[in-house]
Amino acid sequence: MTGMASSTPLSPTPRSTVKRGRQRAQTDRATLHGILDSCLICHLATVRDGVPIALPTGYGRDGDTLYLHGSTGAASLRDATGDIPISVTVTRVDGIVYARSSFHHSMNYASAVIIGAATPVTDPDTKLRALQVLTEHLAPGSWAATRPPTRKELAQTAVLALSLDEASVKLRSGPPGDDDDDIGVHGDWAGVLPLRQVWGTPEPCPLLPTDVPVPDRVAHRSPLVPRSRPVAHLY
Amino acid sequence: MTGMASSTPLSPTPRSTVKRGRQRAQTDRATLHGILDSCLICHLATVRDGVPIALPTGYGRDGDTLYLHGSTGAASLRDATGDIPISVTVTRVDGIVYARSSFHHSMNYASAVIIGAATPVTDPDTKLRALQVLTEHLAPGSWAATRPPTRKELAQTAVLALSLDEASVKLRSGPPGDDDDDIGVHGDWAGVLPLRQVWGTPEPCPLLPTDVPVPDRVAHRSPLVPRSRPVAHLY
Repeated sequence: MTGMASSTPLSPTPRSTVKRGRQRAQTDRATLHGILDSCLICHLATVRDGVPIALPTGYGRDGDTLYLHGSTGAASLRDATGDIPISVTVTRVDGIVYARSSFHHSMNYASAVIIGAATPVTDPDTKLRALQVLTEHLAPGSWAATRPPTRKELAQTAVLALSLDEASVKLRSGPPGDDDDDIGVHGDWAGVLPLRQVWGTPEPCPLLPTDVPVPDRVAHRSPLVPRSRPVAHLY
Repeated sequence: MTGMASSTPLSPTPRSTVKRGRQRAQTDRATLHGILDSCLICHLATVRDGVPIALPTGYGRDGDTLYLHGSTGAASLRDATGDIPISVTVTRVDGIVYARSSFHHSMNYASAVIIGAATPVTDPDTKLRALQVLTEHLAPGSWAATRPPTRKELAQTAVLALSLDEASVKLRSGPPGDDDDDIGVHGDWAGVLPLRQVWGTPEPCPLLPTDVPVPDRVAHRSPLVPRSRPVAHLY
């Protein structure tokens, strides 16, 4: 049941990228991007009153910058700013691994941890761009189709930027890793039960006139599927 | 886009339970249990080398005790023991809230944060019980259908217990909370696009004989749906 997975550290500096070999580094970064692009929320870990707390937070990715946002009143975002390092974790569960032993039961998943100092985004243009990125991650097409933020709303919204430089990725995929002695001897079955996230039927706002059609950007939203599968099975 | 939600603190002590009124406290606890029972993984937040880190971790609930487990080699579990408080967060995303403004875009979700000092489970009977709870949470029916842990496997597995006494719950459900001035004026649509987790087609282990049927516990596994819906829409 330990479900240990290989850890793929991503290059913390350009120098180490070169050392590790360009091809591998690119693959790792594509995997990191793929995980971030296939999930909806992250967990922002900060320390409050001496206690580490991870809170679900919206995010958006712009190249190798991750944007987080929330109310200016949110304590977690205040905790996250300054020179104190914080971390962001994004996790996607892809399936349950049924093994011949309880011990080798596991999950298939992809997870990324990004560590760094988060910077408040205050430049108006950058902040608007960040909010566009955040909105489009949450609801593709919504930025153009809805009212843009007012000056007051911008003031109420805190945006943080976190570089993806220092990140690590953990993956597990593939069938169970049973002990040889158990195969053909124990368990009524073994394999993987995949888990998928699917969109349901859109539920119009009760205040919307009944003749307003559901736009394609909602009705035919792309499924949340892994966009960048690992080449190898790591487990 | 701030997506703020109401926070429901759960009673940290029996005394405060009485103060807050029995009925409300029971409801809150049922909501907490419902969130825990409808998710698969938690994020365990610890501090390592001064950096708060949240790592995806398996869990299982036994009454008001949460069990976590992992390899005895996992640094996060070592970090989590002792008198240092840690926290565990469980989050379920239920849908995307499309509003008339980008600002009021949000998510429907349920999230629980549990804070406390995690205790290593070392008593053999309790540890076996905890592993049963953990296995059954991950894969219902697997404990009886597969080989139990060996003494060596038990020694390789670290189990932590965390009381659910100190916990808070955050929920958002229901339609968008648009500004009155935006309704009928902005946006091409407004409403909720639900997000559901569904099981895929079981993928038998390649080492399994082809005539082994998929057991009901896998083929007809219960869907991961909210087991305890909040009564009121909180947003």
